[in-house]
Amino acid sequence: MKLVTFSTGGDPRVGVVDADAGEVRDVSALLPAGADVAQVIEGWAQWAPVLAERAPALTALALDDVRLHAPIVPRRDVFCVGKNYREHVAEFGRSGYDSPDRSEALPEHPVVFSKATTSVTGPFDDVLAHPGVTSELDYEAELAVVIGTGGRGISREAAFDHVWGYTIVDDVTARDLQRRHKQWLIGKSLDTHCPMGPYAVSADEIGDVTALQVESRVNGEARQSAPVKDLIFDIPELIATLSAAITLLPGDVIATGTPAGVGIGFDPPRFLAPGDVVEVSITGLGTQRNRIV
Amino acid sequence: MKLVTFSTGGDPRVGVVDADAGEVRDVSALLPAGADVAQVIEGWAQWAPVLAERAPALTALALDDVRLHAPIVPRRDVFCVGKNYREHVAEFGRSGYDSPDRSEALPEHPVVFSKATTSVTGPFDDVLAHPGVTSELDYEAELAVVIGTGGRGISREAAFDHVWGYTIVDDVTARDLQRRHKQWLIGKSLDTHCPMGPYAVSADEIGDVTALQVESRVNGEARQSAPVKDLIFDIPELIATLSAAITLLPGDVIATGTPAGVGIGFDPPRFLAPGDVVEVSITGLGTQRNRIV
Repeated sequence: MKLVTFSTGGDPRVGVVDADAGEVRDVSALLPAGADVAQVIEGWAQWAPVLAERAPALTALALDDVRLHAPIVPRRDVFCVGKNYREHVAEFGRSGYDSPDRSEALPEHPVVFSKATTSVTGPFDDVLAHPGVTSELDYEAELAVVIGTGGRGISREAAFDHVWGYTIVDDVTARDLQRRHKQWLIGKSLDTHCPMGPYAVSADEIGDVTALQVESRVNGEARQSAPVKDLIFDIPELIATLSAAITLLPGDVIATGTPAGVGIGFDPPRFLAPGDVVEVSITGLGTQRNRIV
Repeated sequence: MKLVTFSTGGDPRVGVVDADAGEVRDVSALLPAGADVAQVIEGWAQWAPVLAERAPALTALALDDVRLHAPIVPRRDVFCVGKNYREHVAEFGRSGYDSPDRSEALPEHPVVFSKATTSVTGPFDDVLAHPGVTSELDYEAELAVVIGTGGRGISREAAFDHVWGYTIVDDVTARDLQRRHKQWLIGKSLDTHCPMGPYAVSADEIGDVTALQVESRVNGEARQSAPVKDLIFDIPELIATLSAAITLLPGDVIATGTPAGVGIGFDPPRFLAPGDVVEVSITGLGTQRNRIV
C-alpha cells in the first residue's frame, strides 16, 4: 500500500494512492480524528485490513489535483547514514570535504547523524537555496527505511520484522556548513533540505529491497544510479547498530546513504543553484522533484 | 517560574515548583486538557499570568512525594554543542577521542550534533550502563537553553528574546561509540543518556545567565565546575548560528556544551560504572542526581 499525506487547501489528510491510475483516496474518515500516517503505521495490524477493504470504495481524486506533503510528519529528527556506498566514499574522500587528508578509506562502522524535523518538506515542494548561509548546495538521493514495530536490541535476523516500508529522501546538504561545523547536523538540516516521498510504501509491495535502483537527475541529466545492494552497511546492519541501545519508534525514518554522483563528486564541484530541478527516483517508490529557489 | 513534569502514579502533569519550600502545585487543571510544558512555553504570554495568579491557591505536594520527569517532552532531538569550553577542548584533544593527532585546537565554528528524543530521561531516573554496547560511559554537565519564541535568522542581538529559560542536561556519552561512528549521534543517544531537569526555569528568574556555575560530582567527588561565561561560543552566537537557516521551535532544547573535568579528561580515563551516582548542579536551576545501573 502507498500512503500519503496530502491536502487540497485545508488541513493535511491521510491518503491511499493508486500510482498507476494517478489517484489518491482520502481515508481520514476511516481513522481516528487527526490521525497521521505515523499513527497508521504504528497501528498497522489494525488499519491495514480496514484501508485495504474500504479505501477502494471511496471517491478518487487525481494526484495532479492535490498537494503532496512529506508522507510522514516526523516526531523526531531523521536518522541518516553517511558514507554508505563504496564509490561515494571515494568521491567524498577525494573532494577533501570529509577530511583534509582526502582519505578514501571505507568506514569500519556506520556513520550516523540526523536531519532536524524542520528540514522535512514535501516531494514536490521548493528547496530553499539559503543564499548568504550556504553557497555549496548539494543533493543526495537516498532510500529511507520506515520503522513499523519499534524496539531496542533488534538483531540482524529480526530487522526486517521492524521495517514497515520505504520512502525516498533527498539528503540535501550544505557542503560548506557540513565541513565548517565538523559534526554534520547544521549542514544537513537547513529548512526544506529533506524532501520526503512522494509515498510511504509498505514493505509487502517491494519484495527484495536490495534490488531497488536509487537514481537522481539534475535538470534532466542523470547523476546518480546504484542498486540498494551496493550499501556497505545493509539495512539489517543499520537497524541492529542503531537499535543496540537506542529504542526505535514506529514512524522513525532512517535514510540509508547516497550513491556516487553527488555535486562534490565532480571536479570542479557542481553545486545546485536557484532554478535547478532535482529529481530522485527509486524503483517502486516513485519520483520526487524539487526546484531550488 | 519553575515548571516541571511530574507524576504521582498516573499520567504526567504540569507543575509549578516552589523550590525553597520543596513543593509542587499541579496546574494541569488551569491548562487545556493534555497540555505539556512545551505547550505552556509556546503560549507563555497567555499562561504565565494565569499560573502566577492562580497556582499559589492550589494544593501543594511535597516534591519528595512525586516523581519528576524530564521537564520538557521533546518534539525532536536535543540540539547539543560540542567542544565549547576551552579547557574541555584541551582535555578532549589530549585524550585522543576526538582525533588521532590529539589536537587541542579550538573549534572555529560551533560543533553541533543531536541526542535522540529517546535518550531523554528524568532528573532522578536511573541511567542505563548498556553493558555489551558500551564500556566507556562518561558524563557531561551542561546548561541547556529552552527556546520560547521560535524563528529563523535570529540575530545575536535578538537571541535572548527567543530564550524562554533554562534547564540542566547531562550529555551522557558512550565514548567508544562516539569515536567508532565518527558522527556522534549514536554515542550520544543511548536510552536514558540525557537526564534533563529537575526544572525548566524561566529566564526572568535567572538574570545574568553567564554568571551561572555549572558543576558535576561523581559519588560526591567534584569533577566539573565552570561559569557559563567561559563558553567559547556564547548563547547569542549559538542561537544565531543554529537559526541562520534552521527554524527553531518553542520548546527546543539546546545543550550548550560541557566544561573540563569529564571522565576522559583523566589519565587513565575514569569512566562511569554501575552503582556510580552522577550529580549535576547549576546555580538557580537545581540539581539532578542519577544512578548508573
